[in-house]
Amino acid sequence: MTPSAPIARQFLSEVQALLGPSGLRTLPEDTRPYATDWRGRYSGNPLAVVFPRSTLEVAGVVKAADQCGVAIIPQGGNTGLTGATVPDDSGAQVILNLSRMNRIRARDAENKTLTVEAGVTMQAAQEAADAMGLLFPLSLPSRGTATIGGNLATNAGGTAVLRYGNARALCLGLEVVTAQGDVWHGLRGLRKDNTGYDLRDLFIGSEGTLGVITAAVLALMPKPAGIATALARVPSMQAALSLLARAQDRADAQLTGFEMMTPAAVGLALAYYPALGKGVEGLTRNLTMGVSGEEAGPATRVDANASDSHPLILLEVSSPESEQAGRELLEGLLSQAIEEGLVADALVAQSLSQSRSFWDMREHITLAASEDGPHIKHDISLPISAIPVFVQETDAFLQAQWPGVRLINFGHLGDGNLHYNVAPPVAAWLGNPKVFISGAQRPAEPTASLTLSTDRTARHKAYKAFLDQHEEAIRTAVHDRVMALGGSISAEHGLGLLRRDEAAFYKSPVEMNLMRAIKRALDPKGIMNPGKVLSAMAGG
Amino acid sequence: MTPSAPIARQFLSEVQALLGPSGLRTLPEDTRPYATDWRGRYSGNPLAVVFPRSTLEVAGVVKAADQCGVAIIPQGGNTGLTGATVPDDSGAQVILNLSRMNRIRARDAENKTLTVEAGVTMQAAQEAADAMGLLFPLSLPSRGTATIGGNLATNAGGTAVLRYGNARALCLGLEVVTAQGDVWHGLRGLRKDNTGYDLRDLFIGSEGTLGVITAAVLALMPKPAGIATALARVPSMQAALSLLARAQDRADAQLTGFEMMTPAAVGLALAYYPALGKGVEGLTRNLTMGVSGEEAGPATRVDANASDSHPLILLEVSSPESEQAGRELLEGLLSQAIEEGLVADALVAQSLSQSRSFWDMREHITLAASEDGPHIKHDISLPISAIPVFVQETDAFLQAQWPGVRLINFGHLGDGNLHYNVAPPVAAWLGNPKVFISGAQRPAEPTASLTLSTDRTARHKAYKAFLDQHEEAIRTAVHDRVMALGGSISAEHGLGLLRRDEAAFYKSPVEMNLMRAIKRALDPKGIMNPGKVLSAMAGG
Repeated sequence: MTPSAPIARQFLSEVQALLGPSGLRTLPEDTRPYATDWRGRYSGNPLAVVFPRSTLEVAGVVKAADQCGVAIIPQGGNTGLTGATVPDDSGAQVILNLSRMNRIRARDAENKTLTVEAGVTMQAAQEAADAMGLLFPLSLPSRGTATIGGNLATNAGGTAVLRYGNARALCLGLEVVTAQGDVWHGLRGLRKDNTGYDLRDLFIGSEGTLGVITAAVLALMPKPAGIATALARVPSMQAALSLLARAQDRADAQLTGFEMMTPAAVGLALAYYPALGKGVEGLTRNLTMGVSGEEAGPATRVDANASDSHPLILLEVSSPESEQAGRELLEGLLSQAIEEGLVADALVAQSLSQSRSFWDMREHITLAASEDGPHIKHDISLPISAIPVFVQETDAFLQAQWPGVRLINFGHLGDGNLHYNVAPPVAAWLGNPKVFISGAQRPAEPTASLTLSTDRTARHKAYKAFLDQHEEAIRTAVHDRVMALGGSISAEHGLGLLRRDEAAFYKSPVEMNLMRAIKRALDPKGIMNPGKVLSAMAGG
Repeated sequence: MTPSAPIARQFLSEVQALLGPSGLRTLPEDTRPYATDWRGRYSGNPLAVVFPRSTLEVAGVVKAADQCGVAIIPQGGNTGLTGATVPDDSGAQVILNLSRMNRIRARDAENKTLTVEAGVTMQAAQEAADAMGLLFPLSLPSRGTATIGGNLATNAGGTAVLRYGNARALCLGLEVVTAQGDVWHGLRGLRKDNTGYDLRDLFIGSEGTLGVITAAVLALMPKPAGIATALARVPSMQAALSLLARAQDRADAQLTGFEMMTPAAVGLALAYYPALGKGVEGLTRNLTMGVSGEEAGPATRVDANASDSHPLILLEVSSPESEQAGRELLEGLLSQAIEEGLVADALVAQSLSQSRSFWDMREHITLAASEDGPHIKHDISLPISAIPVFVQETDAFLQAQWPGVRLINFGHLGDGNLHYNVAPPVAAWLGNPKVFISGAQRPAEPTASLTLSTDRTARHKAYKAFLDQHEEAIRTAVHDRVMALGGSISAEHGLGLLRRDEAAFYKSPVEMNLMRAIKRALDPKGIMNPGKVLSAMAGG
C-alpha cells in the first residue's frame, strides 16, 4: 500500500502548507536521527519527519495521510527499546514527531492533576508537579528525553510502579487524534467515569497503532515528607519474596521500591564502574545491622553466578511523616527479617548520598552491560510466586546448555518484573566459542571473577558472534519458561518490532483475532504505525 | 433482528442438550425474578434464563446464540442500578445467569491474587481473601448478592476507591467468552504486561455488550493492622477540600475513606432512623476535640438545606501499624485542621461500635431515601477542584427554580464522586404541587424540619407526581452543569438503559463513533446485551 510518487508529493505539499516550511524535514541527513532508534538496532528511510505544534496540526497531517494513504509513525523522544518509532525502508512513511507540542496546558493542585501535551518530557512533567508541591512519580533513566506521549503509548513502567502503578495508572484522560484525523477530546480529570468503553486504556499501550495521543491529564500524588533506602542481602530468591510480603504488611503503600539485583548483576556494575565498588565496600564495612557469618560485603560476592544465590534487595520507603520515620520503619522491618533468617545482612542509608549510591549501583547495571557488550535482554514478568522456580530452573538449564553464560538478572521484584538478561560467557571473547555449540561439550567452570579485556572492540565482536549463534535459542528457552508459568515476554517495554512476532506466536488465535479486530475497527486503512504491535495486515 | 419461533425453539433445544433440563427456565413465573431489576424500574420478557456451570457451557450457549441470532443478556447478582441486565419485551432475548459459576479457582497468597469465577459474590471473594490473611477491598452494600462478574462488567466503585481504586484497578486478568463463543484465556496474575492492546480494560466496564466475563484474577492487598474513623463538621465544601488535601499529605495512602454528607442527607437518615440519631447525639455530647461556638451536634443541624453548608466528613484511616496509630494520625490531623479553621468540630471514634455508627449514618442515607419515596438520583463525578462551585451554583439554581426541593447530596468526595440526589419538597406531598409549576411562584421557606406522614403510600404517590413533572428538567439542569465543568454523569453505576441516551447526547460524535466501531468489531451481529451502553445498531 505504498503511495505513488505524485501522491507522496501531494501529501508533502499539503503538510508544508499546513505546518510551514520549518514544520517538515525531508533530506536524509535531516531525517536520519529520527529514523534510527537510540540503541541503533533499527533504522528506516522516511518520506519526511513532520513537527506539528498543535492538535489541530496533528489532525491536519493525519487527515492528509488518510486521504493519500501515507503511513504515520508517531514519535516522542525516540527512547523506546523495541523499534516502535522507526519507519520501514520504503521511503513512503512519515514520522510524526511530537516534540514541539510541549506545552503544559493546565495545573490543578486541588484536583492533583497536570494537563500536558504529548511532547512534554517526563522530567518537565516531574518538575511542573514539584512546583505545585506534588509528585509525578513515573520515572525512567531517559526522563530528560522521553516524552509523556511516548510514556503513555508504551505504558511505561520504571522503579515506582510498586506503589504508584505504571503510566496507565497515572493518566486520567487523553486527547487523541484518530486514524481519520478527528480529535477525541477525552481530557477528563476524573477519578471515576463509567460512561462507556474504556477508550483511554485502549489507546494507552497501543504504541501509536490506533491513533496519536496529543495530550493527557496526569494524576499527581502527595509528595512524601521523606524517603529512606536500604540494601539487604537475602539468602535466596524465596527469602526475597518473604521479605517482600513482610515489607508490604509493615509498610503497606509506603513501600515504594523493591528492586532485586543478583550478585552477577552487581558484579558486572562493579567491574566496569569500580568507583561504585568503593562506595559499596565502604557501606558494607559500616554495616549498621546484623552481619552474616561471612565478613565480606556484596562487592566481593560477585563470583556466584546462579542468580538465585544471595540476591541484593534495594528497599525504598516513602514516608508522609519524615525521612527518620522511614528509616525507623526499615530498621524495624529488617531487624525482624534478620532474626527470622530472611535477611543475611542489611544496611539502612544514613544520608541522601548513601541512598543515592544504592540506586547508582542499581542503575549502573544497564550502563555496565552496554559497556560489556551485546547481551540477550529480556523484560519478563511472572506471578511473583513463580519467580523462585523460574529463576532456579532457567538458571540451571541455561548454565547446562551454554556453560559459562552470565545471568545478569535484576529488576522490579515487587512487580514480578525481571530483566533476566543473559551475557555471553567471558570465555566467548577469550576465543573459545566452540564449546557453546552443544551443551554436551562443557568447559571447565568459568572463572570466578571477570577479567576485563581493554580491547572493547574485540570483546563486543566476540559477544556479537555468540549472540548471532545462540540468541534465538536462549531467548526461546527463557520465554518458553516464562509463558509456561503464566508470565509475559514484555512487562514494560512493549512489542514494537522487537517482540511483535514472538507475542503473536505465544498468544492464542482468539486474542490475536480480538487485537486485529480492534486495529481494523479504529484504523481500517492501516496507516497508523503499520507493522508495530501487529504485523501489517492485508487491506490495512 | 428477532429470531423466528422455530429458530428460538431450536436454540432452546440446543441449550437444553448442553446444560440439561435444570440448566434453563422458560416459564414466565420462573423467569420473572431474573427479568426485573432490583429497584423494580425495568422489566422485560425473556425467551429463557439459562444457568451455565462452566466456561465451556457459556461458550456453547453463546455459540448457539450466534448461530441462531439470539441476543444474550449476561447477568450476575442482578443488583445493578441502570437496568443493564434486563431483557426487552420481545420474548426473544436470553438471560445468561452466571450464578452457578461460583467456584474459587485458585488462591495465591504470595502473588496476592485470587482467581474466581464470575458468579462468586463480592462477599465470598472478600471472605476468601480474609482467609488468606489478605484484603479484597472492593465493597458495596449489595456485597452478599452482587457478583464479581457484575462488579467487573460495571467497573463497580464503592467506598474504598480513594485508596484501592475501583473494580478495574483490582483486576489483573480475565477469562472472557467472546460474542462468537470463543474463549479468551486472559487469566494472567501479572502486575505488568505490555504485550498488545488492553483487552482486559476494554471488557471491564463494557456491561456485557462485548463478551461475557467468566472468570477473573483479583488483586489482593495487605490487611491493615487497624482502622480508625472520625467524623468532622466542616464550615464549607471548600474547607472539605482543604481538609482532603491535608489528610492526603499527612496520611497519604493510609487515607482509605473520605465520605461527605450534607446536613440534609444526614437529616433524612435521622428522620427515618431515629436510632441512628441517638447514637450521633451521644457521640456529639462526647466530643473529644474542639467544639465550635454552637452547642448542638450534627443531628440537630439538619435544617440547613443548601448542601454547601456545614457538610459532615467521614474520614477513615487504615494503618499498617495499629488502630491506635490510626487514631493518633486522625487526632493530629484534625487538631491542626481545627486550628486552621478547616474543621468546626470533630470526633474520632474510640471503639469499633462508634466507628460502625459513623458508617451506619452514611449507609442509611440511601435506605432512608428509599423509605422517603422516589428521589431524582444522580451519580456524578467532577474534578475535585470544581466541586464547591458546582454545589453552590447548582444548589442555588435548583432552589430558585423548584423551591423547597431537598438536596440529598452525599458521596465519595475523595474521588470527586457525589450522589447529588434531589428529593421532592416536603410540600409536594402536603398537597401543594402548584407552586412547582414555575419558579416565579415561590412558597414560603420550607419547614425547617421534616414532618413525616405516616401514610407512606400517599407520600410516595405525591413524590412520584413531582418526579413525573420535574425529573427530566432537574436531571438536565444537574447534568448540564456537570458536563460544563468537565464531569461525568455516571461515576460508578454505568450506563445500562438508564443513562445510555443521555451519555450519547453529551458525548462527541467522535467518541460515539469510536465506541460503535469497537462494538461492531467485537460483536458484529449485535447479540451481546443489545441496547445497553449503546442503542441497538442497524445490522448489529
